[in-house]
Amino acid sequence: MTGNTIDQSELQRRIEALESEIATLTANAPEDKLSMVVMSGDLDRILAALIIATGAAAMFDKVSMFFTFWAIPALRDPEKAPPPKDFMSRMFGWMLPKGAPALKLSKMNMGGMGTAMMKGLMRKKKVMGLEELLQRAAESGVQICICQMSMELMGFKSEEMIDYPDRKLCGVATFLAEAGTSKASLFI
Amino acid sequence: MTGNTIDQSELQRRIEALESEIATLTANAPEDKLSMVVMSGDLDRILAALIIATGAAAMFDKVSMFFTFWAIPALRDPEKAPPPKDFMSRMFGWMLPKGAPALKLSKMNMGGMGTAMMKGLMRKKKVMGLEELLQRAAESGVQICICQMSMELMGFKSEEMIDYPDRKLCGVATFLAEAGTSKASLFI
Amino acid sequence: MTGNTIDQSELQRRIEALESEIATLTANAPEDKLSMVVMSGDLDRILAALIIATGAAAMFDKVSMFFTFWAIPALRDPEKAPPPKDFMSRMFGWMLPKGAPALKLSKMNMGGMGTAMMKGLMRKKKVMGLEELLQRAAESGVQICICQMSMELMGFKSEEMIDYPDRKLCGVATFLAEAGTSKASLFI
Repeated sequence: MTGNTIDQSELQRRIEALESEIATLTANAPEDKLSMVVMSGDLDRILAALIIATGAAAMFDKVSMFFTFWAIPALRDPEKAPPPKDFMSRMFGWMLPKGAPALKLSKMNMGGMGTAMMKGLMRKKKVMGLEELLQRAAESGVQICICQMSMELMGFKSEEMIDYPDRKLCGVATFLAEAGTSKASLFI
Repeated sequence: MTGNTIDQSELQRRIEALESEIATLTANAPEDKLSMVVMSGDLDRILAALIIATGAAAMFDKVSMFFTFWAIPALRDPEKAPPPKDFMSRMFGWMLPKGAPALKLSKMNMGGMGTAMMKGLMRKKKVMGLEELLQRAAESGVQICICQMSMELMGFKSEEMIDYPDRKLCGVATFLAEAGTSKASLFI
Repeated sequence: MTGNTIDQSELQRRIEALESEIATLTANAPEDKLSMVVMSGDLDRILAALIIATGAAAMFDKVSMFFTFWAIPALRDPEKAPPPKDFMSRMFGWMLPKGAPALKLSKMNMGGMGTAMMKGLMRKKKVMGLEELLQRAAESGVQICICQMSMELMGFKSEEMIDYPDRKLCGVATFLAEAGTSKASLFI
């Protein structure tokens, strides 16, 4: 009996060790999430980001896109009048594309003709355009975070941006917290 | 004895809980894989992608590259005649580089002179060029997926592409399934 | 008693199986690390990389940046005279930016005016510039690996690079070993 009891407490000790190790592993295991930084302002790269995001929304529990720098103008709403701004902010507003319809291809833009032809081709081949993809992303719960620092630098305001259900301003720490717990992270 | 028996069934219950938690962790653990989206059509970025891929083939169980958009022309075989195509597809075929030898540096191309000098320098320093890296990738089992939607959009056909052992057409869901189970995913 | 003893050894067997499975899971679990390839030579993308790196240094145990190709000139020290070089290396040295202060925006550079205005704006809005971010990265223990093959190709030498505490030359295998054990990997 004594030997048996010792075995039992030995097994119990080992089970406790396993329970603690599993708790650590579970706490560190990635969640079923995909996160992306979107920095490029090119139509083709933002299209790719949104094709990935809307595809991922059907496969992962959560998809987060962090729009920063040149990607932010893609989220401007061309219908909304910008609030009063200082000189530099007005200049950024004037020089950068006013929303998704104004974005250009990174190659073969050819003064806008290439971009227009690509858009026509996409419609013909029934490939969703940027505005439709943003709509689809909104419907499928993709989260959009806009980099607060870039917004302040370029002088963009929340009220000029498109209406989007799950949209917030955030900093790099928010992205890193997502990336560190995601199954995959991309920089686009 | 009774107390002992209770202990035993209590231990058994805890072991069963552990077994179930470990099954979940194991099912969600990333596999020994590396996955990449290659979207850029620049010689330097595709070189980087293939240097990473061939290096990774020696270290990971599986390496997958997803060629999309501007990266697809890098896989055209300059020796193969394209099949009959509609006007837009002929135009893409004519405007985009015809295979690896026609790719250009993203910077310092200088009308082709910079690219030619870089290639000469790579040969001199015994750094593998794009064609050799593709050969090496094929030999070391790197999988190449070509984005079906981009192929249809630009009018490229499988029969114009280089011979490559593990090549297939696929969609974004295939990439996402790989990325979600890979140790690392890159967007190039 | 006999039945009880069999149970005990059965439990022991299951515990041993669990211990072995957990050892495998723990060995394969990602470490608390973030790794990045920085290939772009554009001021904006290198700024983004360093903002992510310095932010990550506060959240992860280890942050590694792998500078390759066009990104390497950002690490040149403009105060240091280059050692004697062959013709091609002198040409790279002459054509590529001499250190962080010489980098340009990927868009809106406008012959340097746009880049100068962005830098002025960053100072005004108290956003750290590239030199300060490199300083911050050094202080917070971010590791910088410089791609040996690119250094040899472009003819750059370690002695022309900025002083940086945790800096080393390395190859693609070093990056892949980091990426394969990191919680997140980015290609910038």
